[in-house]
Amino acid sequence: MANGSSHVVIVGGGFAGLACARKLATSADVRVTLVDKNNYHQFQPLLYQLATSELSTSDVATSLRQCLRGHGNVDVKMLEVTAVDPKTRTVTTREGESYQGDFLVLAAGSQANYFGTVGAEENAFPLYSLEDAQRLRSRILAVFEDADCDPKLVDQGALNFVIIGGGPTGTEMAGALADMVNFTMRAEYPDLAVKYARVYLIDHGHTLLGAFPAKAHDYAAQTLQQKGVQLRLDIGVKEVAPDHVLLSNGTLIQTRTAVWAGGLTASPLAANTSLPLGHGGRIAVKPDLTVEGFPGVYVLGDFGNIPGPDNQALPQLGSVAQQCGEWAAENILSEAAGRPRIPFQYNDKGIMAMIGRDSAVAAIGNKRHELDGPIAFAAWLGVHALLMSGVRERIEAFIDWGWNYFGRFRPTQVLDRSDESRIHWQDGTDGER
Amino acid sequence: MANGSSHVVIVGGGFAGLACARKLATSADVRVTLVDKNNYHQFQPLLYQLATSELSTSDVATSLRQCLRGHGNVDVKMLEVTAVDPKTRTVTTREGESYQGDFLVLAAGSQANYFGTVGAEENAFPLYSLEDAQRLRSRILAVFEDADCDPKLVDQGALNFVIIGGGPTGTEMAGALADMVNFTMRAEYPDLAVKYARVYLIDHGHTLLGAFPAKAHDYAAQTLQQKGVQLRLDIGVKEVAPDHVLLSNGTLIQTRTAVWAGGLTASPLAANTSLPLGHGGRIAVKPDLTVEGFPGVYVLGDFGNIPGPDNQALPQLGSVAQQCGEWAAENILSEAAGRPRIPFQYNDKGIMAMIGRDSAVAAIGNKRHELDGPIAFAAWLGVHALLMSGVRERIEAFIDWGWNYFGRFRPTQVLDRSDESRIHWQDGTDGER
Repeated sequence: MANGSSHVVIVGGGFAGLACARKLATSADVRVTLVDKNNYHQFQPLLYQLATSELSTSDVATSLRQCLRGHGNVDVKMLEVTAVDPKTRTVTTREGESYQGDFLVLAAGSQANYFGTVGAEENAFPLYSLEDAQRLRSRILAVFEDADCDPKLVDQGALNFVIIGGGPTGTEMAGALADMVNFTMRAEYPDLAVKYARVYLIDHGHTLLGAFPAKAHDYAAQTLQQKGVQLRLDIGVKEVAPDHVLLSNGTLIQTRTAVWAGGLTASPLAANTSLPLGHGGRIAVKPDLTVEGFPGVYVLGDFGNIPGPDNQALPQLGSVAQQCGEWAAENILSEAAGRPRIPFQYNDKGIMAMIGRDSAVAAIGNKRHELDGPIAFAAWLGVHALLMSGVRERIEAFIDWGWNYFGRFRPTQVLDRSDESRIHWQDGTDGER
Repeated sequence: MANGSSHVVIVGGGFAGLACARKLATSADVRVTLVDKNNYHQFQPLLYQLATSELSTSDVATSLRQCLRGHGNVDVKMLEVTAVDPKTRTVTTREGESYQGDFLVLAAGSQANYFGTVGAEENAFPLYSLEDAQRLRSRILAVFEDADCDPKLVDQGALNFVIIGGGPTGTEMAGALADMVNFTMRAEYPDLAVKYARVYLIDHGHTLLGAFPAKAHDYAAQTLQQKGVQLRLDIGVKEVAPDHVLLSNGTLIQTRTAVWAGGLTASPLAANTSLPLGHGGRIAVKPDLTVEGFPGVYVLGDFGNIPGPDNQALPQLGSVAQQCGEWAAENILSEAAGRPRIPFQYNDKGIMAMIGRDSAVAAIGNKRHELDGPIAFAAWLGVHALLMSGVRERIEAFIDWGWNYFGRFRPTQVLDRSDESRIHWQDGTDGER
């Protein structure tokens, strides 16, 4: 452990925490302890690619030690933080270790917000963590394998996939899953009536991709419909059961694979910080990324409501998290040197979403210049390559993947044995199989 | 499903079963049903690379459907065969489906043989399946993460690794693990006293790599010792406990990671075939790869004792399995066409083992021309690339990996949450941490 005048404790190795640690790593004035319950950084925007077997685990996750290698003043600890005392800037972990810092950076991220939907937490697959994506991947592969051996399961909805939420995650997942069904699965299961597979995308709003310009709404809807995705807009979800999803209009869709892309709330640690919570259960953050009344405490990314230009909270995006991570590091170095903190200014480079193999929508810059089609896909590829964690090999793998994507190449659908692959199928009336 | 005059049912998608299916796939005279409990082919000789985080899951496993893609006369079913009736050439699966063939090919592989060693089945990590390798990988990463947070665990043997069995698997695992400790872990855990990590390699015999020429025995031992591996030869293992291994000379080695590379026996299905079993619980096989008294039944690879030149059983090697898979396919096509079966002739191209990053031993051809050092490593790389399943992308990934290996590059040590990562550490006397 290198010595430094100030000790910074960072909770969470996502976009925000990692960016903050990296920036601080270049300064000899601080030493950093980064605490995360996992030993890896996950590339959250591509988890749906892992779920659809397009990318493998090592493409979307990098060990935190490797991300921070060569920096003697940064220490990674794989521990789960369960409570925070913001007065003393001390974190306590499930394992019993505790860490106290001159500065405390809270960047513990989000989890799915089920908004009280009956059965959703128990039965739907969220898509926020690496484990979420691996579980969903196992389930998707398992329903195909099971239906291939017992075609009656198709009548029980084995090949129906219901995606709840038409934001970027739900839209991207629907496009990738439709492509997986139409190209890969149709070729690999010649015995199976893959033509009966259905991908449903449900949203209670009137359009997909609400945060995008109107033209993107229509482009996304048309592209998905061309891929065979069944759009159900202006409709809510009443219940998610092990074998069906019940919609607000009374429609019941049989499925073993309901994907929850319906919203995020701060991770449960937020409630154990004794800090004031706002919208989405997220901590209220001052413009300089600190918390009122608790000197030296910073809150970053999805874990807080980060103030934007007109004092509206910024959206939960990787680019917001990454930028405020770097900004917080600068403010910490300023504080440590006796200089004032500066209010965070988000440099809005735009938003984009990919819709299957060769289509994407993008709204570039804060003026929202619109792009769609293959050129938007290329932009999407480039931006994500830049966002990735700076490990050269990962970026090369990703760009390789992007080009292969055009060429209809697929990585392997290897089904690891897991709980998700052991589905309890109800017997039909004959009970013979 | 294409129609063909003969139906061939193959049990097992390893080297033998897959090679047989591939050969038969090129003939219009047969249709093939390949049944495996997993939907993937695993590249068994490289599983130790997965266990040491050198390769990722998708590098050592390929979906069987992808391996056999484009062949309309081959059907893959992911089902676990639990019983075989060799008279009617019918297999029954745990899921209830059954398949009957004009020909039945049994290639269900091996599992670890613990030879009754106390506690070994419960506590040691075997290294024969993809899941074995993933479990071992999680355990190795978990002991480092846990010891990094609680250094007292080093005194409890957290960083001791005991490999039982000095054949190719044990020797390769010891070399790779020593390199992982010496290079990667020492760099990534600056806080941790990685210098106290110990890799032990135990064998009851007098040399490592007994099947290799004498010069290779010495080269392997010297290379491993230079890497810091503690060799314990001429010593047996009395007991494997959750927290230690007890040797036959009374030595107790504290460890949470005992790796079993001590031998193989046929997979348990062999006992449910009512076929005669021989050495290692393997089915007795005739020179033409069929079974005495059961027309149309073939037994291949590690599942049987495959007769060699002087009627000795051939060793359990991927190359034996692959060659007899192809040979059986030829014999089946001959039988179907009314031509005689031909006795299997193994083309012995030699044996090789890798000992860490840049060393290997090889004995080339049945004359056993000897090679060692980096040139043997290059040969090892080339042979394994050729042995791999013929999917171009996998081979490229593998060769990339080989070159990176020289350059000390490491893929990421991403620790998936699993049972193996949750270790019950006994409290020390103070019980405070």
